Amino acid sequence: MRNGTGKDGMLAMTNDLDLNEAVELGGSVVSRTVRQLTQFSLQAQDGDYLGSEAELLERMSISRPTLRQAAKVVESDCLLSVRRGVNGGFYATRPSARHVVQSPALWLRLQSATLDQMNRASMLIYPTAGAEAAKCTDPRLIAELTAFRAAIDEREARGESQRETLDAEIAFSQLIANMSGDPVLTLFIGISYTFGLLEREYRFYRRSPQRRQRWLSLQRSYCDAILSGDSDIAMLIGKRRGHQVESWIAEDKAAAQQEGRAAAAKTEDRHDGAT
Amino acid sequence: MRNGTGKDGMLAMTNDLDLNEAVELGGSVVSRTVRQLTQFSLQAQDGDYLGSEAELLERMSISRPTLRQAAKVVESDCLLSVRRGVNGGFYATRPSARHVVQSPALWLRLQSATLDQMNRASMLIYPTAGAEAAKCTDPRLIAELTAFRAAIDEREARGESQRETLDAEIAFSQLIANMSGDPVLTLFIGISYTFGLLEREYRFYRRSPQRRQRWLSLQRSYCDAILSGDSDIAMLIGKRRGHQVESWIAEDKAAAQQEGRAAAAKTEDRHDGAT
Repeated sequence: MRNGTGKDGMLAMTNDLDLNEAVELGGSVVSRTVRQLTQFSLQAQDGDYLGSEAELLERMSISRPTLRQAAKVVESDCLLSVRRGVNGGFYATRPSARHVVQSPALWLRLQSATLDQMNRASMLIYPTAGAEAAKCTDPRLIAELTAFRAAIDEREARGESQRETLDAEIAFSQLIANMSGDPVLTLFIGISYTFGLLEREYRFYRRSPQRRQRWLSLQRSYCDAILSGDSDIAMLIGKRRGHQVESWIAEDKAAAQQEGRAAAAKTEDRHDGAT
Repeated sequence: MRNGTGKDGMLAMTNDLDLNEAVELGGSVVSRTVRQLTQFSLQAQDGDYLGSEAELLERMSISRPTLRQAAKVVESDCLLSVRRGVNGGFYATRPSARHVVQSPALWLRLQSATLDQMNRASMLIYPTAGAEAAKCTDPRLIAELTAFRAAIDEREARGESQRETLDAEIAFSQLIANMSGDPVLTLFIGISYTFGLLEREYRFYRRSPQRRQRWLSLQRSYCDAILSGDSDIAMLIGKRRGHQVESWIAEDKAAAQQEGRAAAAKTEDRHDGAT
């Protein structure tokens, strides 16, 4: 049961994501080899030697071009490194955290995903992450959040730079993600932040002193709910943060449209003047 | 405001995802070059020539080793292809859908994410995707879903293979994702399905004729809600599907634990017999 989306369909619907292609690459020898090499890598540890080219060719009973084509795919998944020369051969590698969140975030940007869309999905995910974080018992992470909470007043008094606000926001999200102990939530949070940073739009909570104050106040209540282990309140504050961002995005959009109309009117005036 | 997570911390908390590293790579010349090359690629179209090595070296005022190091990073993000020889130079490329969902799904597997965790996040995302899909007005996608709905009875009567059930499920999810018109939801759905397939655990809705019947019946109601444009019902059925999967996962887990205990008891019997 495949859908009939051809090349034209893909062009028409830019956000078509062919999941069949995503997991299968068809049923060819190359795709089978991709799966096998992926398995070899996953069964080994990062850095382990998987064998020389000759050894893998014999073990898998495939041709050299097939192996090389498949190896390229698994290399692009960052699960394999092929080294030439002395000590050459196939080695297991692991994708870096950067790689794992960067390509989805870039893909979203290429699909013209909006901050609105990202915030809508975040509003679904973040409150649950907060509620799970409230159940965390890891003393190291609890100490980190306690330190983060303690620094908020000082940050507010000092009037930190935009870069510092951003770094704090990232550290905070990362901490909540790690405290949730859930890799799926952690992955989503990583992608959402990376996307936000690519968009460079995360300035909305600095646009006025009122917003900044409100945002830091929400950070305080969020920290307090998580540190007191109250999952219900943590979920509630998580939702409140989402709604706050939603309304700021809407406000900023309305303001930008008004500016756009004002600019267009000015241009028309000028045209009128020219004729 | 960076957290103090060092190498040891990363090892202790396997799901630490360093978002600072993820977006910045520090403030070095290489990382600045990575950002610039990424910009060049994003501003161009897939396949566009960005210039020769010599041209880029001059344009960016950097050294050859810096350019080559940065190019490797951008190549691994699938945004750049460096070709040698005649017509050599730097070309803009785009990540494939496969690449975009495969590495996060693999990362989740490496982090030992569970089907439970994936389903919990899916329960947050899928209902909203269904509700958005119900607002879709694209005649091609509506026709596809109509055809999918019409085929369910035939699939049930025929007793399709496991592979066919899986392909249908993927096509269905992909269709809902595309109908939602939201790249963020589409990305999440892609990752969740690829993860499920990697885990090869998506057999739970085939484990008994009752489950299979229930699953197809939910597919029917989901299709009907979306096709009738009823977002509220679509959201409700989306939630119901999630709860159903949740309870099946719990049932299967309990059964596996019982089997585990039975097997352990058997082994002990054998040990008792041997002494």
